Amino acid sequence: MPVPGPGYSITVRLEAPPSASAAGDLASAVGRAGGVITAFDVVESHADRVIVDLTCNSLSANHAKDITDTLGLLPGVAVRKVSDRTFLVHLGGKIEISSKVPLRNRDDLSRAYTPGVARICQAIAENPDDARRLTIKRNTVAVVTDGSAVLGLGNIGPAAALPVMEGKAALFKKFAGVDAWPVCLDTQDTEEIIRAVELIAPVYGGINLEDIAAPRCFEIEARLREKLDIPVFHDDQHGTAIVVVGALRNALRVVGKQLADCKIVVCGVGAAGSAIIRLLLKQGPGDVVAVDVDGIVHRDRPGLDDNLASIAAATNRSGVSGRLHDALVGADVFIGVSAPNLFGAEQVATMNDDAIVFALANPDPEIDPMEAQKHAAIVATGRSDFPNQINNVLAFPGVFRGLLDANAHTITDSMLLAAATAIADVVDGDRLNASFIVPSVFDTTVAPAVAEAVRKAATGA
Amino acid sequence: MPVPGPGYSITVRLEAPPSASAAGDLASAVGRAGGVITAFDVVESHADRVIVDLTCNSLSANHAKDITDTLGLLPGVAVRKVSDRTFLVHLGGKIEISSKVPLRNRDDLSRAYTPGVARICQAIAENPDDARRLTIKRNTVAVVTDGSAVLGLGNIGPAAALPVMEGKAALFKKFAGVDAWPVCLDTQDTEEIIRAVELIAPVYGGINLEDIAAPRCFEIEARLREKLDIPVFHDDQHGTAIVVVGALRNALRVVGKQLADCKIVVCGVGAAGSAIIRLLLKQGPGDVVAVDVDGIVHRDRPGLDDNLASIAAATNRSGVSGRLHDALVGADVFIGVSAPNLFGAEQVATMNDDAIVFALANPDPEIDPMEAQKHAAIVATGRSDFPNQINNVLAFPGVFRGLLDANAHTITDSMLLAAATAIADVVDGDRLNASFIVPSVFDTTVAPAVAEAVRKAATGA
Repeated sequence: MPVPGPGYSITVRLEAPPSASAAGDLASAVGRAGGVITAFDVVESHADRVIVDLTCNSLSANHAKDITDTLGLLPGVAVRKVSDRTFLVHLGGKIEISSKVPLRNRDDLSRAYTPGVARICQAIAENPDDARRLTIKRNTVAVVTDGSAVLGLGNIGPAAALPVMEGKAALFKKFAGVDAWPVCLDTQDTEEIIRAVELIAPVYGGINLEDIAAPRCFEIEARLREKLDIPVFHDDQHGTAIVVVGALRNALRVVGKQLADCKIVVCGVGAAGSAIIRLLLKQGPGDVVAVDVDGIVHRDRPGLDDNLASIAAATNRSGVSGRLHDALVGADVFIGVSAPNLFGAEQVATMNDDAIVFALANPDPEIDPMEAQKHAAIVATGRSDFPNQINNVLAFPGVFRGLLDANAHTITDSMLLAAATAIADVVDGDRLNASFIVPSVFDTTVAPAVAEAVRKAATGA
Repeated sequence: MPVPGPGYSITVRLEAPPSASAAGDLASAVGRAGGVITAFDVVESHADRVIVDLTCNSLSANHAKDITDTLGLLPGVAVRKVSDRTFLVHLGGKIEISSKVPLRNRDDLSRAYTPGVARICQAIAENPDDARRLTIKRNTVAVVTDGSAVLGLGNIGPAAALPVMEGKAALFKKFAGVDAWPVCLDTQDTEEIIRAVELIAPVYGGINLEDIAAPRCFEIEARLREKLDIPVFHDDQHGTAIVVVGALRNALRVVGKQLADCKIVVCGVGAAGSAIIRLLLKQGPGDVVAVDVDGIVHRDRPGLDDNLASIAAATNRSGVSGRLHDALVGADVFIGVSAPNLFGAEQVATMNDDAIVFALANPDPEIDPMEAQKHAAIVATGRSDFPNQINNVLAFPGVFRGLLDANAHTITDSMLLAAATAIADVVDGDRLNASFIVPSVFDTTVAPAVAEAVRKAATGA
């Protein structure tokens, strides 16, 4: 049941009669149309009329139009202008570049630019490691996409993906002080993507791959890790896996189970699902059963690609086959990164006692969380209007902060697990319960804790 | 005659006796060693000693060591630490990225990131032109290099070139509010450079090519201009050409000559020289004679490459051959972008009356400007310690500001000439004289004037 949210917030400028009841009439009209008023500002007041800015949350473009139409039908009310607040936030883009050094006079210029800068260039030419000391490389990450799997929107291309990459860059800075720059590549060819990232790498201390479709993303990441001397991290894979593994750690503490005893069903074997499965397997789970659109993944299923074949080889020890509903019977944990509305409360009822359900498909989960709660002990989603939100922003800023602080040249599974544990441990025993297995995305202690854990894992210190 | 400058400024931390004469003794020692003191700070004061930070300009690493050694030999003085202020300025790099939008709470996040950002992505997917309205593309320029011709340092590679690109980005922001980002490519292959720039282009509203060696730079620029729908500008070519043409316009006003009557010698036919010649030719000069290391360029000279052949076809109407000294005889203007110390006052004496000499080789000009002044009416250099400094920073910030403001898809010679005229016209008649033919690089009216001229030329408005 979606509710009107700030992602679709409009400000309507209205002319209304100066009557005592005007504000109340406007508010009731918005309410009748299903909108939620968040601000009411009088812009001008005259003897015969008032001009007001009414801001409200809505569900969609159509809903926003319904609200505006309803307002316009009130006696004496005229709609002058409708602004979409989300579009206003994006005008001119969301990030900017600024100078960290003064450039007030000739002396400043002589040091930061010519002729002084020549000595810095020479120092780096003689000792390439100095680039991490004397340039932005030390604190800078490329956020690289080909625009092929952007949010739930699919293959919208590099230009249309840029707002997401800018948002990511803003979050990198906000939560971890990392300078991240959008690299939106105008190609979806695996070889070209790999080569382009290699070519731009000198400026960066790390590469964050983003919203690149599976299975291309696996080869791109693997090959870049071989070629580059800076860490390469596909956030859709490992960012998600870190937060899921951290959340599952806490969920198991709440229900008092051990991972080694659990049967875990992972539904969706794209970028996120594959990485979740691989990170779970590092910790010795009871068993993992992977499910995709063609049903349960097992060794004998025809037509497995390289990624699925490697998943099949390491999971489903009992060799079961069938559909998602079959996999759920007796499972301790369901982790979905797939599609909306795949099952209902009756399937959760077939799971083991104290079932854990992570239904992470966005914006509509694999199961309505209210339904899941009927039989599950713990429910998590990707949504912000429900407890236990699984959100990558808990992981990626701190992960790269730690990698950069360690001058890391690679990233390993032990760093990913350290990050997951750090996120889980931010929720101390006093606060831990079935509705609070992960910290808030606005908990400013998360990124430093993750950074410290990754730095230690990277340096062995 | 170089003087100690702020590009080589050191801060020496010293322990000295607490005597009344200590400061004077230290200052005299620096002076004896040829340094110039710019600051003297007492850090700690004790009964038996003082700790001071003495900052002074020097000429070179050896000279800085001489100064430090001289100080260390004073009775009772011990040198504790020597810091190079240019290196200090560069620690951690010179630019950073920041968020232009608030990310304080869930509502902010819902608009700037998911779920709200999805609507922005969809809008751009449906109407690609919206990228210039709703993303950083509107204000963002790539500063692209392959590190093959960096300052006077030559082919030092992409990592060592980064400090220059960062400095350029800082200047772009300071003088014109343009967000510029360093793209240091780990290849020197023409095809790979072209393809890499094509692939990264979706994020940018313009491409500034920088410090790419000739003749590769010509093909890269020409092919990118054909492929991309954003302006491509090689600053070493056109930035220099704009400022030279602007300065020459004012120099000719001072001496009362017309370009159509002038014989102009251009020495050095690399990136800068070729672009200067081409921009001069657009204005109908009397004649242009190009000279390179092999002497005067003429149609019948064997071994001309494509660039030289096209220059030869359009210049040297009298078909003269010989060396630089031959070309100078009777010339009205010399423009050098080549090598140090190529000629002396006696060759200037062979030029026409009211000779104009632009000796722009850095750091050492084609002729010592003091020598040139003996017979020339106007002398300009690239140096900051002499009047009439020809510096690209007068051009590139305003040029790109104008291109971005115009949403320009291309850049034309008429825009370059408009920029040159705008720079010249900043020096009004009252201030114009032989020692002031170009505005100061710190004149904040230059970039807006250039931007306005380029915007008008681009939009026809």
